[in-house]
Amino acid sequence: MMVCSLYPALRVTTPWSCSESHLGSCRKQLMFCVSRRKARRRAWTGVSCSAETRTVVIGLAADSGCGKSTFMRRLTSVLGGVAEPPRGCNAYSNTLVGDATTVICLDDYHALDREGRKEKGVTALDPKANNFDLMYEQVRALKSGVAVEKPVYNHVTGCLDPPELIRPPNILFIEGLHPLFDPRIRSLLDFSIYLDISNEVKFAWKIQRDMAERGESLESIKASIKARKSDFDMYIDPQKQYADAIIEVLPTRLIPEKSATEVLRVRLVMREGVKHFTPVYLFDEGSTISWTPCGGKLSCSYPGIRFFYGPDTYFSDEASVLEMDGQFDRLDELIYVESHLSNLSTKYYGEVTQQMLKHADFPGSNDGTGLFQTIIGLKIRQLYEQIIAGESSHGWKREQLRRCLRLSPV
Amino acid sequence: MMVCSLYPALRVTTPWSCSESHLGSCRKQLMFCVSRRKARRRAWTGVSCSAETRTVVIGLAADSGCGKSTFMRRLTSVLGGVAEPPRGCNAYSNTLVGDATTVICLDDYHALDREGRKEKGVTALDPKANNFDLMYEQVRALKSGVAVEKPVYNHVTGCLDPPELIRPPNILFIEGLHPLFDPRIRSLLDFSIYLDISNEVKFAWKIQRDMAERGESLESIKASIKARKSDFDMYIDPQKQYADAIIEVLPTRLIPEKSATEVLRVRLVMREGVKHFTPVYLFDEGSTISWTPCGGKLSCSYPGIRFFYGPDTYFSDEASVLEMDGQFDRLDELIYVESHLSNLSTKYYGEVTQQMLKHADFPGSNDGTGLFQTIIGLKIRQLYEQIIAGESSHGWKREQLRRCLRLSPV
Repeated sequence: MMVCSLYPALRVTTPWSCSESHLGSCRKQLMFCVSRRKARRRAWTGVSCSAETRTVVIGLAADSGCGKSTFMRRLTSVLGGVAEPPRGCNAYSNTLVGDATTVICLDDYHALDREGRKEKGVTALDPKANNFDLMYEQVRALKSGVAVEKPVYNHVTGCLDPPELIRPPNILFIEGLHPLFDPRIRSLLDFSIYLDISNEVKFAWKIQRDMAERGESLESIKASIKARKSDFDMYIDPQKQYADAIIEVLPTRLIPEKSATEVLRVRLVMREGVKHFTPVYLFDEGSTISWTPCGGKLSCSYPGIRFFYGPDTYFSDEASVLEMDGQFDRLDELIYVESHLSNLSTKYYGEVTQQMLKHADFPGSNDGTGLFQTIIGLKIRQLYEQIIAGESSHGWKREQLRRCLRLSPV
Repeated sequence: MMVCSLYPALRVTTPWSCSESHLGSCRKQLMFCVSRRKARRRAWTGVSCSAETRTVVIGLAADSGCGKSTFMRRLTSVLGGVAEPPRGCNAYSNTLVGDATTVICLDDYHALDREGRKEKGVTALDPKANNFDLMYEQVRALKSGVAVEKPVYNHVTGCLDPPELIRPPNILFIEGLHPLFDPRIRSLLDFSIYLDISNEVKFAWKIQRDMAERGESLESIKASIKARKSDFDMYIDPQKQYADAIIEVLPTRLIPEKSATEVLRVRLVMREGVKHFTPVYLFDEGSTISWTPCGGKLSCSYPGIRFFYGPDTYFSDEASVLEMDGQFDRLDELIYVESHLSNLSTKYYGEVTQQMLKHADFPGSNDGTGLFQTIIGLKIRQLYEQIIAGESSHGWKREQLRRCLRLSPV
């Protein structure tokens, strides 16, 4: 086994900006960040270098309120165990740690807190409100098997809380508004996903969440969407051109008379030629197929279900598209759909159905959002296994050990 | 083996009407029809009763000039051997005899010859111009294993030539304008097919044949189509409601700007619940599927190929429809399409492709007409084998022997 006896925890270079009242009883854990000297001493203490496994890094880009957290719960479930906040005392941590995975939220790299953004007149979507240098350094460190002290953005207070220690996991997800924005960070990604929610659906979801659950007025919701739109179009949306897989969520076409958002048409765009990623196909690879499976084998109430699969282009690149319009009446019958999909990267027959049934209570379990999120989870598991298998046979461990030993403490 | 030592040849009850000049040198063969006494003596001579195998009867209905003869050549090829005119001297015989099959043309049952029809002002499509009583009697006799002396309509002279002897084959096809018209004859059919050519395609084919090959004028072609239309709509077209399988030939939908007939959209409508006939399906039985197979595995020049499969209704009955729009560039690549079709009733992998390649020079070999005709041939072979297998285990032979012995000579 190739294990370093020590490893450095990279120090946070952004100051944490809130008053102590937000820190609660967590002083002890945060001590090593208080002074440079103490931090150095602490950073060397009893943490082993994980050179034996490499960290595979996955980026998930999407606007806020687009179901990233449900997506992450599905992914971590496929990849092993339950994702929970890291052990520590910050109840407002945005991080989730599973058996093999860690999900970090890139909001934690806000360079400006809520007050600061207000002062400077920028939104969180503006790159100026984010620290891409630190984001890059820390993702690079984690990828190299080096733990970091990552800042924490507190979504409740809008402040930057003291940092938390992130150990290099097997699979690191970086999710948020800008995982594909900075070319340096893109170069670190082994795989990238963009959640592309159409304006109609985004609006319907926001109404549902902010009006029904948070009591906001329709006018204030419309105003907030309008205020973000220009920055979204400029900084967030263009990132999808770099994604390896894109999940597009659109209104159904099964109800032609209106743009219905209570039923969704979900498209999984899979770029061709991505290393360790073979697109899923329906019936026949490379053909163009429209499939209405309803009948004796699948219960479908109005407006039914329609699948589509075929080759396409995405930002001039070759891609395959799998589409599901409509929703399942009975989730256990999904096995029938699963049996006609190939390249699913399952480990046993029916794994997709089993995963979906396991989380039947998650939003989107009866439509293409849940189905394609689950499939992407399986594809990432395979991608991880292929990368590890390939690199362990190509001397990656030796190289990693050299890197580990070369890294100097902060 | 159960073989009758003698069998009666049913005498033709319609007179043959042409002058002797049309009979050529065939007097000898025709002798036994000249007098009742001679016919009786001749009819008992040395013809064995085929009680050991039952004759399966298949009806094929279509207007003239709709490709029935090509269809028949494909069917008899699948069913064994080459179909040729019967041994005898009438070069104008409309019958084809293969190893296991006999195809009789129902034009032979015209009650009125061309002159007679002209006199009475009826077309050949009018039931009054046809002898359904004799048609029924003779088909019934053949089905019971009894040979008949069938009249012969001479398409060149427009006269009724002397009859020809038809022995009961394994599979008897009755093809022509009215195989499904008379309910008595319908009750004798084990399977029935209707070739449904759309007006646009029929017109294009007629132009091609009668103008290019026979030098007719466009006006005379239009006039002849118009003259037949009312009788066609009244007597021929309604028969399709009784067919078990319908091949519809329509203009392509791949070239949207015009009703293009040089590329065909062919639909195979297969009624559900027909004994010994299981509809072919594409990918998934009972689903609705549209498939564009063009790409790496199938060469497709403009306008490409599109398949469709799905459940439908046909005259209020449940049916499955398989559709092919477009044409193959390379017939050997058909194996790729064949591999995605199920319930083809082939005896080995690739049999459809091999049959199509064998007759690549037949009209329609590169489109759905040839493909579906070939498939229907395979379905009929299976239907025949299932009927024979079922009946040989249910005492059919014994019953057939009794019938054979009961039939008295004419």
